[in-house]
Amino acid sequence: MMQFFGYFRSSSAYRCRIAFNLKGVRPETAFVHLRRGGGEQKLSQYRALNPQGLVPSLEVDGVVLTQSLAIIEWLDETCPEPALLPAAPLLRAQVRAVAQAVACDIHPLQNLRVLDYLRVELGQDQAALDAWCRRWISEGLDACEALLVRNTLDGRFAFGDTPGLADICLVPQLFSAIRFGLDPAAWPRLDAIGKACAALPAFADAHPARQPDAEA
Amino acid sequence: MMQFFGYFRSSSAYRCRIAFNLKGVRPETAFVHLRRGGGEQKLSQYRALNPQGLVPSLEVDGVVLTQSLAIIEWLDETCPEPALLPAAPLLRAQVRAVAQAVACDIHPLQNLRVLDYLRVELGQDQAALDAWCRRWISEGLDACEALLVRNTLDGRFAFGDTPGLADICLVPQLFSAIRFGLDPAAWPRLDAIGKACAALPAFADAHPARQPDAEA
Repeated sequence: MMQFFGYFRSSSAYRCRIAFNLKGVRPETAFVHLRRGGGEQKLSQYRALNPQGLVPSLEVDGVVLTQSLAIIEWLDETCPEPALLPAAPLLRAQVRAVAQAVACDIHPLQNLRVLDYLRVELGQDQAALDAWCRRWISEGLDACEALLVRNTLDGRFAFGDTPGLADICLVPQLFSAIRFGLDPAAWPRLDAIGKACAALPAFADAHPARQPDAEA
Repeated sequence: MMQFFGYFRSSSAYRCRIAFNLKGVRPETAFVHLRRGGGEQKLSQYRALNPQGLVPSLEVDGVVLTQSLAIIEWLDETCPEPALLPAAPLLRAQVRAVAQAVACDIHPLQNLRVLDYLRVELGQDQAALDAWCRRWISEGLDACEALLVRNTLDGRFAFGDTPGLADICLVPQLFSAIRFGLDPAAWPRLDAIGKACAALPAFADAHPARQPDAEA
């Protein structure tokens, strides 16, 4: 028994949806509305599941897994095909570094709780919040572009001709870049990867707009 | 040939130092001073190595690895003993989740570039910066404490009686909590783990104060 707790617009839930789709795994799904009633993720019932009060969470046979990258690596270890990481250690490290450049150094800075703090505690307006997000997304995607351009593997995806962990993290981040008014054409390599991914059902079906809890 | 680029006070460099010590691996070391001359990490020479302009980086036979968790997992895959992750996938995921709760959801928010933005672009004073850091550290360590208290493994360390990836991330974060005026006694399980780790030379020798580039 496997139940996935997500939210359509969360980048980290989006990553997991792509990974499940690539593996052909279909967990039951529950929706945690991050904005309704002050945020369902803050309710004690959800915090008992995920003490961080963040999505996603994955319940597997009574064990609750948290953190999208940990969930995806668990999935890759337990359902090895198709592999989301290459076999060679130096290459695995480079794939993970791109994934973490997104998951550690971009996404957490634009998370809802952080934007709430900037607005409420620090009195920042929407324009300041948007500029904040654009700064970290731009700086982070500039670095990802540089990391991928110097990477020795050619191919349609971040590392070769099959999609993997780096693509899984880049695609939701590009979606979020567009939401904050950035043009992905600024990063030609990432833009091409995003387009190659969008052509695959595993990525297309994971898009926020196509989820049952999606809102306009 | 292996060369490690770090900074004594960087949490993510500190994590790598602990991991190298636990494995008994001694890379050559270069120091990147994050505050001198506006930050050596911003120099084009360093950015050619690490496009994020962050520490740490590890150069291995001409390949540059970035992101502390990717570096540590590479080390664990290439020098398997002592293992930094358990063998069982569900347990590995729980260890990684604690590591990522620190590395994704606490540490990047208190990073130098973020504090610089709050001060310069958003005009916040030191008190506001300290409150910002304390908020994310407290909230994050509360969650780590809850994740570890519900974890089924007893033992001196985060997951059992040998130190691993979770301890490697928690110890530098506790060090940083103290720097920002927080009392680790607020998290009894983490505090006990921190004390157990401090008794090991691998952790003690990695402490910022004991690095060649340390400053008062």
